[in-house]
Amino acid sequence: MQTPEHGGDIYSASYRLDYSVSINPLGTPYSVRHAVIRSAASLGQYPDVKCRDLRAKLSERYRLPAHWITCGNGAAELIFAVAHSVRPQAALLICPGFSEYEKALRSAGCPDIRSYLCSRTAGFVIGEDLLDRITEDIDIMYLCNPSNPTGIMAGKELMVRILARCREKNVLLVADECFLELTSRPEEHTLLGYIADHPNLLVLRSFTKTYAMPGVRLGFGITSNRKLTDRIRDSIQPWPVSIPAQLAGEAALDEAEYLEEARGLIAKERYYLRQSFERIGINCYDSEANFLFFEGPGNLSELCAKKGILIRDCRNYRGLGPGYFRVSVRTRRDNEELCGVLSDIYRTNGHYLTDGA
Amino acid sequence: MQTPEHGGDIYSASYRLDYSVSINPLGTPYSVRHAVIRSAASLGQYPDVKCRDLRAKLSERYRLPAHWITCGNGAAELIFAVAHSVRPQAALLICPGFSEYEKALRSAGCPDIRSYLCSRTAGFVIGEDLLDRITEDIDIMYLCNPSNPTGIMAGKELMVRILARCREKNVLLVADECFLELTSRPEEHTLLGYIADHPNLLVLRSFTKTYAMPGVRLGFGITSNRKLTDRIRDSIQPWPVSIPAQLAGEAALDEAEYLEEARGLIAKERYYLRQSFERIGINCYDSEANFLFFEGPGNLSELCAKKGILIRDCRNYRGLGPGYFRVSVRTRRDNEELCGVLSDIYRTNGHYLTDGA
Repeated sequence: MQTPEHGGDIYSASYRLDYSVSINPLGTPYSVRHAVIRSAASLGQYPDVKCRDLRAKLSERYRLPAHWITCGNGAAELIFAVAHSVRPQAALLICPGFSEYEKALRSAGCPDIRSYLCSRTAGFVIGEDLLDRITEDIDIMYLCNPSNPTGIMAGKELMVRILARCREKNVLLVADECFLELTSRPEEHTLLGYIADHPNLLVLRSFTKTYAMPGVRLGFGITSNRKLTDRIRDSIQPWPVSIPAQLAGEAALDEAEYLEEARGLIAKERYYLRQSFERIGINCYDSEANFLFFEGPGNLSELCAKKGILIRDCRNYRGLGPGYFRVSVRTRRDNEELCGVLSDIYRTNGHYLTDGA
Repeated sequence: MQTPEHGGDIYSASYRLDYSVSINPLGTPYSVRHAVIRSAASLGQYPDVKCRDLRAKLSERYRLPAHWITCGNGAAELIFAVAHSVRPQAALLICPGFSEYEKALRSAGCPDIRSYLCSRTAGFVIGEDLLDRITEDIDIMYLCNPSNPTGIMAGKELMVRILARCREKNVLLVADECFLELTSRPEEHTLLGYIADHPNLLVLRSFTKTYAMPGVRLGFGITSNRKLTDRIRDSIQPWPVSIPAQLAGEAALDEAEYLEEARGLIAKERYYLRQSFERIGINCYDSEANFLFFEGPGNLSELCAKKGILIRDCRNYRGLGPGYFRVSVRTRRDNEELCGVLSDIYRTNGHYLTDGA
């Protein structure tokens, strides 16, 4: 079985349960679906290039000036746009991490891409030694918090020191907070409050995961750096955000209760999954996100696929290899099924689970 | 009044009739709207990164291998993507022309952007002297046929010579055929038949104009150059085309009758507009597209705006200046209204029409 580049590729084969995508387990809110339906009436118009209504709502929701906000065709578009607009000579990435950072840098011709390795021995945790790796010759650093694929949250104090060090060394910090809104305490961990004083900070957020709407494509970036905003805008076509996406985003921002409910569900179910995994004998890491990172036999995703469950084999993350996996946190009924399948696999195969690498 | 960067900005002010956008006057087909409505059921899934179903339909429709086709978030995304992936050292553009070619090249850091000027004295027609301008040191050339904003079609024989010269000089020709499907004889003028033998050719097509669905964002590029396809794909995020856009595109491709009807209507109404304009005393150019390019007093768009009609002031096209305008070809009822308003303006202001530059 070929390891897919990303989770959620349900188009290459069919599965009963897709544990490879890490989106809100409550599913797309009705209001978002309804907004897309409503958008059908205005498809004959060009989208507002400035996403005025959507940005006004974002501005209100996060209490930030609207002109700090740039909307994109998914946060992924902004990951590429910032690379294309900065055209960095040297970049620093955290490994393991989302593969699109590196691809965006390569596409922008960045000749020197460095890795800070979160090793297994260090529990995949970012250490203070990262600070020394942030040097003057680096132009940009991408950091996803909580981490994808581990779900581990870098502590706020360390994040603030990283940000300060980046400012001191004139490094642009792209803080990818795409998974933050589904953690239990996003306000505590976000860097949004540091944007005003840090022109070297760009925070990325995504509607995809938070509101379970990956089919729509919508994300946004926030920075107080006007020049950076202009350069990002200049590196993207004028109409990146479709009318269905703009209306869907506006509808999603009204879903405060849904989001609160999702956070509660995810915390509870993450705990349930972790307890169950440990009972099965699976070595889990300390995720605060809506997914769980764990170790297992190299052929585990194949064994799960045979039972109709798609899990994320993490072997193609730089810094990892065979034997690491990620599953999303879903509703209890699904989670029971996943645990049942894993339990069967472990019981049946016992110590004979082979490494499929 | 500030001249908008593009047509169709109905968000900055409201107008009774928008003649500034050049899309199919029949409006979005019902099947396309319905496809967007249907998409509401699958927003919780990631879009197929490979747009398999849509590309299969495109492949069938144009009788081209599916692997030649790359879909994007509007043709505009592909204009930027090709610049980012080629990272040209020198480029050649036709002036006047679509401003996004130059913006894409600048965003990709192209240091040498040259212009071939279609002058007023030459009737804004591309001459054979363009061939001499295609030299070895040029990496890429964008050419829109029929031209935007003039609607003038470069003859097939000249286009084939341009393409051959580009191949000889190792220049990538980006042939933007975004307006071609709404002309009367697209098959006669397209370069699609030359793709197999010309790895230096990339043809761009858009659903936006052809099917009046600019709110959705969907376009595609076709090239037999596998390396170029890969590089374009690598310079874009993995999920550029949303599920609403993919389904809308598939639905649009079934609308053969709608397209035939639109072509007939456009030809007839373009003739009507031209006759009427000439009666008013307006100097029109020989458009074969779904829009008409003409000369008028510098403040004409302001005068029209006062009457609730938005027309495209072309002064911000490189190679033009005040006194050039573009209107789309719409249905008879709208066209009568436009001609009535223009007729009033010309009668009232007579020879005193001022140049608002």
